[in-house]
Parts: sequence; C-alpha cells; structure tokens
Amino acid sequence: MKNAEDTSRREVTAEVLSIGDELLIGQTVNTNAAWIGEQLSLIGIRPVRTRVIGDDRQAILEALATSVADAVLITGGLGPTKDDITKHTLCTYFGTHLERRSDVEERIVGLFLSMGRRLEDIQEVNRAQADLPKGCTVLPNTRGTASGMWFERDGRVFLSMPGVPYEMKGILMDNGLRMLQERFAPPAIVHRTVLTAGLGESLLAQRIEAWEDSLGPLGIKLAYLPSPGVVKLRLSTYANQDAGEASGRVDRKAEELYGLIPELIFGEGDASLERSVGAMLRAKGQTLALAESCTGGYLSHLITSIPGSSAYFIGGVVSYANAVKMEELGIPSRMLELNGAVSKPVAEQMAMGVREALKSDWALATTGIAGPDGGTPEKPVGTVWIAVAGPNGVESKLGSFPGSRELVIERASRSALNLLRRCLNTM
Amino acid sequence: MKNAEDTSRREVTAEVLSIGDELLIGQTVNTNAAWIGEQLSLIGIRPVRTRVIGDDRQAILEALATSVADAVLITGGLGPTKDDITKHTLCTYFGTHLERRSDVEERIVGLFLSMGRRLEDIQEVNRAQADLPKGCTVLPNTRGTASGMWFERDGRVFLSMPGVPYEMKGILMDNGLRMLQERFAPPAIVHRTVLTAGLGESLLAQRIEAWEDSLGPLGIKLAYLPSPGVVKLRLSTYANQDAGEASGRVDRKAEELYGLIPELIFGEGDASLERSVGAMLRAKGQTLALAESCTGGYLSHLITSIPGSSAYFIGGVVSYANAVKMEELGIPSRMLELNGAVSKPVAEQMAMGVREALKSDWALATTGIAGPDGGTPEKPVGTVWIAVAGPNGVESKLGSFPGSRELVIERASRSALNLLRRCLNTM
Repeated sequence: MKNAEDTSRREVTAEVLSIGDELLIGQTVNTNAAWIGEQLSLIGIRPVRTRVIGDDRQAILEALATSVADAVLITGGLGPTKDDITKHTLCTYFGTHLERRSDVEERIVGLFLSMGRRLEDIQEVNRAQADLPKGCTVLPNTRGTASGMWFERDGRVFLSMPGVPYEMKGILMDNGLRMLQERFAPPAIVHRTVLTAGLGESLLAQRIEAWEDSLGPLGIKLAYLPSPGVVKLRLSTYANQDAGEASGRVDRKAEELYGLIPELIFGEGDASLERSVGAMLRAKGQTLALAESCTGGYLSHLITSIPGSSAYFIGGVVSYANAVKMEELGIPSRMLELNGAVSKPVAEQMAMGVREALKSDWALATTGIAGPDGGTPEKPVGTVWIAVAGPNGVESKLGSFPGSRELVIERASRSALNLLRRCLNTM
Repeated sequence: MKNAEDTSRREVTAEVLSIGDELLIGQTVNTNAAWIGEQLSLIGIRPVRTRVIGDDRQAILEALATSVADAVLITGGLGPTKDDITKHTLCTYFGTHLERRSDVEERIVGLFLSMGRRLEDIQEVNRAQADLPKGCTVLPNTRGTASGMWFERDGRVFLSMPGVPYEMKGILMDNGLRMLQERFAPPAIVHRTVLTAGLGESLLAQRIEAWEDSLGPLGIKLAYLPSPGVVKLRLSTYANQDAGEASGRVDRKAEELYGLIPELIFGEGDASLERSVGAMLRAKGQTLALAESCTGGYLSHLITSIPGSSAYFIGGVVSYANAVKMEELGIPSRMLELNGAVSKPVAEQMAMGVREALKSDWALATTGIAGPDGGTPEKPVGTVWIAVAGPNGVESKLGSFPGSRELVIERASRSALNLLRRCLNTM
C-alpha cells in the first residue's frame, strides 16, 4: 500500500550481488541476501533485486555493468585463498589496482595475535588480505581478515563484503548501514513489530480486520510475518519531517492492538516465546521443569537456547517410553491403560509429577502423536495434550497440529510455551 | 577441476528466477534456489545464475528477456490470490492467454474433497487455478493447486512453479527433473557422497591429501561439504558412454577411502548421525537413554526427529541443575564438589545413572559449558565431557567446541552421537 507521503522523497533502491559457486549448487543457502534485504528495508532503502553468480570474472563484470540500483551490496569471493577473484575484478571494473594498506595489515596481525598465533607464524597469504583497491573506502572487519570496500561511481555506491555471514553482518552493523543512510538519506521509517501467538494468520487477520482497515488512511502499513506458532505484526510508516509525529501515530495504533488482542501478544521486536517465558520466570524468581513426550526434548532445547536459562530452568524428563512416564513421573499404569498416553489426565499428571520430582515452581508437559505413524481416527497425527502445573494447580489444553513430524513438534512446542506464558500471567 | 571428458558434450546450463517481495525484504530465505541448484547439479546441468525479483510485471518481463541459460526455472508468484502476477506475465511474454483446463480443475476439486471440503464450498478463486496459459505443458502439482507450466522458445525451456517449497519439490521430483534430462540429455554424472564425523575439514583434507591427489587424473572431482560436526565428501565424475565404467571408477576410490578413514565414515548419501545410530540400535534390538546437561535437550530432539525412534529411544533426563544430577542420576554431591559438574567422572556417572534409572542398554551423557557465560581459564566456554555407558562398561571423551552457544550445543551433540556410533561398533 502506497500513500501520499511515500512520494515526497525520491525512493532509494538497492540490490544484492552474491558471489559463490557454493550458492549456485546449493551447498550453501543464501541467508546473507535475506538478512541484508531486511536491514535495508528497516532503514527505508528498497531492495529491488538479488543476483547470485559463480566465482567467475566475466560473470562479475557483467553483473556490475548491468546493476541498476543506487546501492549494490556485494557479498562473497573475498577469501584468503583461491577465491580472491572479487577483489581483482573490482580493480578492473573501477580502473584501479591493489595497494597494501598498513593500517589494515596491523589490524590483521593483531587479530591473529589475539587468537594466540605467533607473529612469525602469520602467513603472507593472510597479510595479503590488506592488499586493497586504491581509492576505495575501507570498512573495517573486526571479526575476520577480509575488509569491506566502498566504491562510488556515477552517484551510485558499490559495497563489497566477505561472504561469511558473521563478518558481513559486523561490517554492515558497525559502519555500512549508517554510511548508506548518510549517503542517500532515505525517507526515515518508523517501525514497531508486535509478536503474537495462539491464532493462525488467517484467523488473526479476521479478528483485527477493522483495526487493519483503519491503518491505510493513517499512512501505516501492516505486514504479517508468520512462522510456526507465531505471527509477527509489523507496523511501519514513513516519517517525513516529524519523526515524533510518525512514532506517535504508530504507537497509538499499537496500543489499540494491545487492547484488541491482549491475550495473544507476548512481546515486541526480537522477542521470542522462550525468551519471554524466561524473563517472566526470572522476574518472579521462580523455576521451571519440563516433561516431554511427543516434543522429544525440543522444548528443553528452546528453553536452554537462551543464555542464562540455568537461572530458572532446573531440568526435564523426556518420557518417550511409558515405563519412564510411570517411574520418573509417577503416572499410574491404570491411568495409561484407561486413557492412553495421549490424554488430558496423563498430560496433567506428567506436569504435576515432574514438578514434584524436580521441585520446581512450574512445570510444562506435552504428550501427543508426532507421526508419521501412530495416528488413529480418534487421535490423528498432530493430536497433542499440553499441561502446565504451577503453585495454584494445573491447567491443560488439547492442540491439533497436522503436518510433518518436524512441524508437529515445532508447533506443539510453541503452543506449549504460549500456554505456559498465559499461565504465568494469570495463575 | 575440469577434465578431458567434460568437453566431449556441450554443457547444459540453467538459471533460477525467484519471484516474491517476501524474498527481497528478507521475510523468507530463498531455500528453493539452493535446493534446485543442488538437484540440477546432480543430473549434470550447471546452474549459472539465480535472480530474485519482486512481484512486479515489468521486472518479470525484463528478467525473462535477459535470461541466458538453456533452462530457466521460475518459482513463486502463483498463489490463488493477489500475487497471481507470474501467470499473466508469462501469457504476455509467450503471446498466449489463459484457458480453463478441465483436467486440472478436476484434480483441484479432488484435492479439496480429499481434505474434507464440501463440493459447494470450493471457491471460484480455487477453481481459477486451473486457468493456465494455452500451449504450455502442464506439470501436475499433487500437493497443491498451482500447476507447473513448461514453455519452450528458441530451443530453451522456461518452467514456472509455485514458491511453496513442498509443492515446487514435488513438481520437479515427479516430472520436471526427468523432463529436463530427456529434453537436454546433459552429460550423465555419477555421484557418491561419503559422510564423515570426527575431524574438521582442514584436518580431514590433510589426512586424505594423497588420495585426493589421485582423483584428478581419473577425472573424478571431490567436493567437501562441511556442516557443524559433519563433513560430507562428494565424489563425482562424468559418464560419457559407459556408466558402468564411471561407477566402477568412483566406487574403487570410495573403497580406498573406507580403507583410509574407516573410523570417520558413518554413512552415505542422505544419512545423518542420528539416523545411523538409530539404525544400529534397531539392528541390535537395543535401547538408548540420554542424560543431557549442556546440550539441554538438543540431543533428545535429534534422536526423536527420526520417525520410529520410539522403537529404541526410551527417554532422557535434562539435568540442568546439580540437584537433578544428584537425585535423578545418582551423582554423589561429593563428586560434584571435588571435580565440578563439567568433569570426566560426572559425565560417566550421568551415563551410568540414566542407564540404570531408565533401564536402557545404552546411555549417552553430556556435561559442559555452552556459554556465553560460565567459562573459566581451565574450563573455557565450549569445554564438554561426553560419556557413553553400554553393556560392557563406560567410555568418555573431552571435547572442545569454541563458538556461540548455538554452535557449542550443535557441535557437542554431533560429537556425542559420533562417540555413541563408535561405541556401538566396538564396545
């Protein structure tokens, strides 16, 4: 959706040029292009094209010559060994030559020394990473040896960076994005990303339809960013003269959203359910234990993927076999016989059992059918019971998550984290 | 590395054209292009370029007009709603118009009925997916409603497919790849992919250097495909006249590799460590339990990601807190005090303890420092003890996996699976 404000400034465009045979033949997925596209969008620069080509001089020259955007972001082909082709080809294209940059060489030597390498063991092939095209602006790489190189021609910018994601991101975050903003002054964009769980994209869209319709006239754009179990809602608007006014406009609509779907919102920005739940437990000074059957350890993995989770996560039991459910979690065999392992009483007893065994304040349990086998007409693949036990009792819910084994596990785990979040809020 | 046989037939080239604003702004990573590139390489077609453009008629027309390869594989922009732009633009480019295909409409209706939809509820917007460009060859989509569309012009092929990975893969696997092979008869390629674990890429390369040098003269190409904890070695050669001869040549070198690094090889092709370990347990009719500290449930997740793993996986304990190590796994508190939780005796006792508690034949345990905090000079982040307990005793090893928390967990888990694999072979 375009609105009147969009056109008051010239749009700034960008394209990504990724170089590497390994991308073409599928050894590596081009996550760099997606990350760069997202970062550019966030600062108001519009990505219009991505191209992937091989480590080939002619292909690189042809791609440079047919580029069209204001900024061309180039990744890859800057390694210390054979695939140094990008640097030499840039010299050809910009009519310059390589020159050893002593400041860059010092930084490279320092990097190796800090990694415990001895001065006499630093190879010429590593020092040669300080040979850079004369006339380009060097963007330092604090995480590796291949520098960023910024060229200008005919009012356009060409920025070449290494293909290693961690190094490329460092160069853009440290300097590149800021320099692009300064150079092109793209229309400022105000963003707010509200994270929801508990409703799929289409049901969520129905629920907030009237609110969504009210955004257009205010010049606010809404994007749905769905992933298994979570839908992010990104509000954005251009801030032409008055950033405060634009922020206020977005904030007012975000507040309305909190009023409309309070129970679905779990955070903003880069938050995740596992991070939110962790922060709530930390704030309460309480602990968590897990009892997993169909999610098979994935919930534990999500919880422990958060640095510092040992402050509130005690541990868990993965009870794949019924014997483990009985002996470790205290499920009576009669309960299993009467209800089956995928049932409300078993899920609730798993949560209560692990809470007692591991002496935690809270416990979360899952039991279900991840598939592809094991489904029945009454309990098809994707049937999952989830239970939370807390200081004030136990709560459970039945979920239905059809799909591949991987997707059942992913969606059941997100749904379990969301039930825990809601119980931490209310129980 | 090129060899004499490469040039005896004309090379067949392909490019991928991915359409979608969501790819440009980084909402979606372009995994399609990587998958297609890999599949094409496997049948001897060389991917030379990937382009990503927005849902924009002019951009699509321009990309079609500037395509250069023998085959242009187009993904995306075939949805049932607004983003149907690809289909209409293809009609413009190929000078044709849409026509309702009754056979395709019947298949779409059948698909909805099989999903439990009632006939009267099937919308015109869904039936309209049977409107296809007159003159194109339709490649059926058995997994969704958007068909594959095959056009030819000037001796080149344009194949348009939906952007949903699962549907696109189905169309190519069912018909598309075979049709490309028949149409272009690319030089046949013989492959064999040997999977290794236990040595990083550079140490592995040193170890097999002489063997690798012997491949070139035989016209065999070697690719290293590294991922955390696993390095795949792909051998490939062209089979010009005699496929049996080419297979024999590759097989002989593969057998030599088995002789050189028998302890590092765990499978071929699509195998994984978790799948191999599962197959070994299944073959022995034995069971596994896990005790995880630093891997936090990720090992359990890997094991249970394999369909049918409940046949050999009993369950596990995630012992994040020391209290859980003591109470659930029988670690004496004095052992923790004397050695610390990250130590050989604790790892071994964890394995023995969970084996006894869960009554399994085998048990695998990890304890280490995943970071980013918690490291010390003697035990820095990435220090991980791994132990296997089995019918004939216990074995352990110390690993060092520096890197981010995510990477420590990933690499420690792969290393643990590899130790278990070796113990299953020898203990």
